[in-house]
Amino acid sequence: MKVGDKQYQSIWLNADDNRIINIIDQRLLPFEFKILSLETVEDVFYAIRDMALRGAPLIGVAGAFGMYLAALEISNRSNPADHLRNAARYLSSSRPTAVNLDWALKKQLELVGRDDSKEILVKKLLENARNICAEEIEKCRLIGESGLPVIEKISRQKKEETVNILTHCNAGWLACVDYGTATAPIYLAHDRGIKLHVWVDETRPRNQGARLTAYELGEHGVPHTLITDNAGGYLMKKGMVDLVLVGSDRTGSQGDVANKTGTYLKALAAKDNNIPFYVALPTSSIDRSIINAEDEIEIEERDPEEVSHTEGYLEGEIVKVRLCPEQTKISNFGFDITPAHLVSGLISEKGIVKASKEGINSLFTE
Amino acid sequence: MKVGDKQYQSIWLNADDNRIINIIDQRLLPFEFKILSLETVEDVFYAIRDMALRGAPLIGVAGAFGMYLAALEISNRSNPADHLRNAARYLSSSRPTAVNLDWALKKQLELVGRDDSKEILVKKLLENARNICAEEIEKCRLIGESGLPVIEKISRQKKEETVNILTHCNAGWLACVDYGTATAPIYLAHDRGIKLHVWVDETRPRNQGARLTAYELGEHGVPHTLITDNAGGYLMKKGMVDLVLVGSDRTGSQGDVANKTGTYLKALAAKDNNIPFYVALPTSSIDRSIINAEDEIEIEERDPEEVSHTEGYLEGEIVKVRLCPEQTKISNFGFDITPAHLVSGLISEKGIVKASKEGINSLFTE
Repeated sequence: MKVGDKQYQSIWLNADDNRIINIIDQRLLPFEFKILSLETVEDVFYAIRDMALRGAPLIGVAGAFGMYLAALEISNRSNPADHLRNAARYLSSSRPTAVNLDWALKKQLELVGRDDSKEILVKKLLENARNICAEEIEKCRLIGESGLPVIEKISRQKKEETVNILTHCNAGWLACVDYGTATAPIYLAHDRGIKLHVWVDETRPRNQGARLTAYELGEHGVPHTLITDNAGGYLMKKGMVDLVLVGSDRTGSQGDVANKTGTYLKALAAKDNNIPFYVALPTSSIDRSIINAEDEIEIEERDPEEVSHTEGYLEGEIVKVRLCPEQTKISNFGFDITPAHLVSGLISEKGIVKASKEGINSLFTE
Repeated sequence: MKVGDKQYQSIWLNADDNRIINIIDQRLLPFEFKILSLETVEDVFYAIRDMALRGAPLIGVAGAFGMYLAALEISNRSNPADHLRNAARYLSSSRPTAVNLDWALKKQLELVGRDDSKEILVKKLLENARNICAEEIEKCRLIGESGLPVIEKISRQKKEETVNILTHCNAGWLACVDYGTATAPIYLAHDRGIKLHVWVDETRPRNQGARLTAYELGEHGVPHTLITDNAGGYLMKKGMVDLVLVGSDRTGSQGDVANKTGTYLKALAAKDNNIPFYVALPTSSIDRSIINAEDEIEIEERDPEEVSHTEGYLEGEIVKVRLCPEQTKISNFGFDITPAHLVSGLISEKGIVKASKEGINSLFTE
């Protein structure tokens, strides 16, 4: 997607020197646009750990490229396979809960032959990292293609008047490599000339909507308006929202959706106002082992400082300010569960299905 | 209510010199506690206009005391009645939409006799301001008494285990003179030894929950936990909320409630989880001329900077930081409407009634 006039991905191989991986430092967005060069496995470790990059798909791809850098670091004195296994362990520890990261590291390790030379390994792991990256992009593009008809239909119903879409958090290209998940149908529809406008929830406590979604939509030229998380209900009641489109961190076998805290409230308001509520997701984020999402998905309690403080821009600097009394107790559950009956459909790279056991099963049968 | 070990109101006559009105500068809370002395009509005007004090009841009381200060300013060369009428006009212009302010100014003007001397007027207007102030306090105390049984009942049902109450925005004593509206039953229950705990919505964009409700509950010793506006749905689903208790800016004749943006989302979540949702309000805030609240109550669009920026505390200073890209478009509707069917009851100084035409009518018949 675009930043200014240039086309970007959230991670790419440096064009002049393919021993360097480039990423956008997302900690500084939207205040500063800075490209980081990752030249060592350690660079990748810290980029993931310190959240210069975030988003499950992007972390996975970064891990894959990290393994390629690890291959470049194989020395004459080390056993290549051992070296790479250690690198995978090290990279995995940068974000222990990131399922995609472990998946990508495993994908890379599977290629390692017992007697492969450094040259062979470098070649194999680079090629595979590129493939993993390309697959992520294609998956998001296909989510976009799957979701596009939902927007097209509303556009037709409204006689091509502006389609108003509300989104929560950042399920955008910055979290993936390109297109994003919830944003993929939006970018595709926009690029194909459908008139649309996005209501962007700021998404406290980390403000991913205000910081990242507003940024990426703005840079790509998609009309949008930032609102507080509190405002969506009123807008829906007033007929100012035609569609709610969000991402998902994890979806259970019955179609219940775990996503950023606050998603459930928007789903309730969509239902109350007969507004379609769609969830865009790669099928890889569906966890078919989960029957009762409400009981089985453990919701992470995050750092209280995310609530007591917020980051913002002040006189050319990113600062963290306190919002409440110093001694105030905080609770900070990061996600919530939206029950399947509030979800109009799941938009995946394999098409749209009902948020139900049957719908989800149909994604996994040929 | 208490601040530290001392009992406070949000406005009071200076004990040493009753020509001075004291208020707490609410712009600095919770970061600094500073008492302002208002000695002239102009002081009152700026305190209201610049929001050193806020909250409809408090603004009304401040206006009443402002008229007393105006009486003190009557000079030998002016016509006392003209002088006071001009002062009322001037004070009214500090917050043109504040209904309580105009009501209190009118109450004061009604007392002005054509031939009253300055001494008489000073005495009358001081006495009346004190009465208006005392009535506001008593009204809030009665709202507390009305609502107390709701909390007591839940406490009994839970066999005296902690009652968890969720509130939105600040309908606390800082917005009134004492007790508050939504907080009145909470303070009364707490002071009478009922075990309770309050979930405080931070209430973006102005963070009145994080700044004021967390502050006043903390100072009075009421157990509470600050959460983002997004978190309430999850807590309700998990059985961690027994009661939602909010205030109201304006309530229509059918029981529909206009309150701070986001209230409607909490009402939907309460309904979805069978949690009682009560609105505490003085009957004076009921507007019986409103039939269809959704259409008839105009929702104020407020300054975009409230959303694009937030105030916080940084190294001993209150600063305003930017949260989103500089050019991002903002929408900032300040309130929303919660339909009567989501409201379990209205808690007023005259008792609890149904949020319905019949319920509301019963408040206005003797």
